[in-house]
Amino acid sequence: MSIPMDFNVFSDEFFMRQALLEAQKAFELDEVPVGAVLVAQNQILARAHNRTEALTDISAHAEILAITAAAQALDSKYLPKATLYVTLEPCLMCAGALAWAQIGRIVYAAADPKRGFLALAPKALHPKTKLEQGPLAEEAQALLQSFFKRKR
Amino acid sequence: MSIPMDFNVFSDEFFMRQALLEAQKAFELDEVPVGAVLVAQNQILARAHNRTEALTDISAHAEILAITAAAQALDSKYLPKATLYVTLEPCLMCAGALAWAQIGRIVYAAADPKRGFLALAPKALHPKTKLEQGPLAEEAQALLQSFFKRKR
Repeated sequence: MSIPMDFNVFSDEFFMRQALLEAQKAFELDEVPVGAVLVAQNQILARAHNRTEALTDISAHAEILAITAAAQALDSKYLPKATLYVTLEPCLMCAGALAWAQIGRIVYAAADPKRGFLALAPKALHPKTKLEQGPLAEEAQALLQSFFKRKR
Repeated sequence: MSIPMDFNVFSDEFFMRQALLEAQKAFELDEVPVGAVLVAQNQILARAHNRTEALTDISAHAEILAITAAAQALDSKYLPKATLYVTLEPCLMCAGALAWAQIGRIVYAAADPKRGFLALAPKALHPKTKLEQGPLAEEAQALLQSFFKRKR
């Protein structure tokens, strides 16, 4: 069996799967299970999951941890060539952070009609940032639902 | 000369003056000059100024540094009894962070029609958070203007 020439192992699904692995780590640590990876040129520059409980820090969302780690790695506040894969639509705080970082592209899995930025401030992002809903929305959503069910 | 019985040394102006001192520190360090103090029961729990350049971190705004420091001091993610004094209207990221922190009250000095949250998402804050424009707006604005004039 041959692999087609245009086969790309580094697909959106591949990277979102990595973000979902991070979300699962959060779940195991009793944190709201959201994960993110920051990718540039098919390399994962940062992996992160929500750590608000562990750090007693409302700003320790996966997205902010990922972009600040990548900023350190690249020694640059701005990430116009990077893509953020995140398992949940970013909140307003994270959308604002992603705007300041001038992130190139955001791919999210599950939508968040209640806390996501799209309902409150659809123009929150930098005008050059591409935004799309990507793969694994159902898996990401199921993980969140089982977390909140456990909490009740 | 006697001091009236109801004289309150801990006025909004007193605390905003402290936030402005933080902004002046940022100015001297070549950071966008915004400062904040976090106050509960007339005690300053945290002082902070913008450190985005020093930390290569777009999330290192004065507001976020102040609330995360206070959260550490109080060992609580939530700050419903605290007031944040900040020299500039918070951006979307900071408004989102202040919403997660359920801050009790926000007093800002200068308005920020371009980058402030009020234009983009006026409902960004927690419904119980009180917001008001306070004293020293002109001083805070003048400091920002002289910073950006120096940059040109």
